[in-house]
Amino acid sequence: MEGKWGIIQVYTGDGKGKTTAAVGQAVRAHSHGLKVFFVSFHKDPERYDYGEFRVLGQLGIKTASFAKTYPLFDKGVSKEEIRVECKKGLEFVRGLFKKRYDMIVLDEVNISLREGYLGEEDMMGLLNERPTSLHLILTGRGAPHFLIDRADLVTRMESVKHHYDKGAPSIRGIEY
Amino acid sequence: MEGKWGIIQVYTGDGKGKTTAAVGQAVRAHSHGLKVFFVSFHKDPERYDYGEFRVLGQLGIKTASFAKTYPLFDKGVSKEEIRVECKKGLEFVRGLFKKRYDMIVLDEVNISLREGYLGEEDMMGLLNERPTSLHLILTGRGAPHFLIDRADLVTRMESVKHHYDKGAPSIRGIEY
Repeated sequence: MEGKWGIIQVYTGDGKGKTTAAVGQAVRAHSHGLKVFFVSFHKDPERYDYGEFRVLGQLGIKTASFAKTYPLFDKGVSKEEIRVECKKGLEFVRGLFKKRYDMIVLDEVNISLREGYLGEEDMMGLLNERPTSLHLILTGRGAPHFLIDRADLVTRMESVKHHYDKGAPSIRGIEY
Repeated sequence: MEGKWGIIQVYTGDGKGKTTAAVGQAVRAHSHGLKVFFVSFHKDPERYDYGEFRVLGQLGIKTASFAKTYPLFDKGVSKEEIRVECKKGLEFVRGLFKKRYDMIVLDEVNISLREGYLGEEDMMGLLNERPTSLHLILTGRGAPHFLIDRADLVTRMESVKHHYDKGAPSIRGIEY
């Protein structure tokens, strides 16, 4: 039975640790010999130095990024362009379904859902098509209700205290 | 300034993802060239196959374990023995303070505090002695108030939904 049934796991909430936990999850699964792919949304590893992409690569875990520009940071991008990019991301994941991965991380995809770049039917379609043995990990604040209902394991990261509140800058090795 | 001021970070709460996030944190910091040590409490990597220890080692991140027997699982161990082991763990960490680490993870040490194996004065003594540049990450449910007060960054992992509730077994690559 082991490894036969994959779970849908969600990390959401405003607190720090969602992507961090997804990275830990990918690394842990990899250490058990599971085949893992890490797909991120709304992040540009070429523009910002996200250490996790480097270390995942170093371990042999493949990564890909979609909808790299985030409208909050890049005003020159239209919602429609981002929508197209997000849908490309889902198509890419669909392609991975045929490649016998044991775990796929969809980092920050909850943002795509929250902002309406992806609809419920896009995501539910994907979840329904996934191989039953595949673990899917979805992260990002604002996970919609339909996703929480559908998931097997949901953790909400609540921010109890954050040094940002005191005006401190983000720290290399901690936040990115 | 960067890297000059370390933070005290706490992952607590009943939800999944505390150790997982600490592993992700260690890996991310390592990817930026930070020198990281991962110390765990109440876990026995020789007895259980915690994949994270293997992969941390593979990346060159050093690990150590203290108070490996957990009273809930091993009735033959006295509280006093565990207390001695936990204090040894803190002494070990104190020794690391002299070795120019950038980040030390104290995984599940909140359990040691919650169960009274370590007291407030033990932990506060350690926190006060730490080099100001050192990031300390403490995990485990039931983080005491004094620790939350003292920390710079605290995330509570809230369990919204867990497949355990449906009687499913723990899954290799997900939980351990």
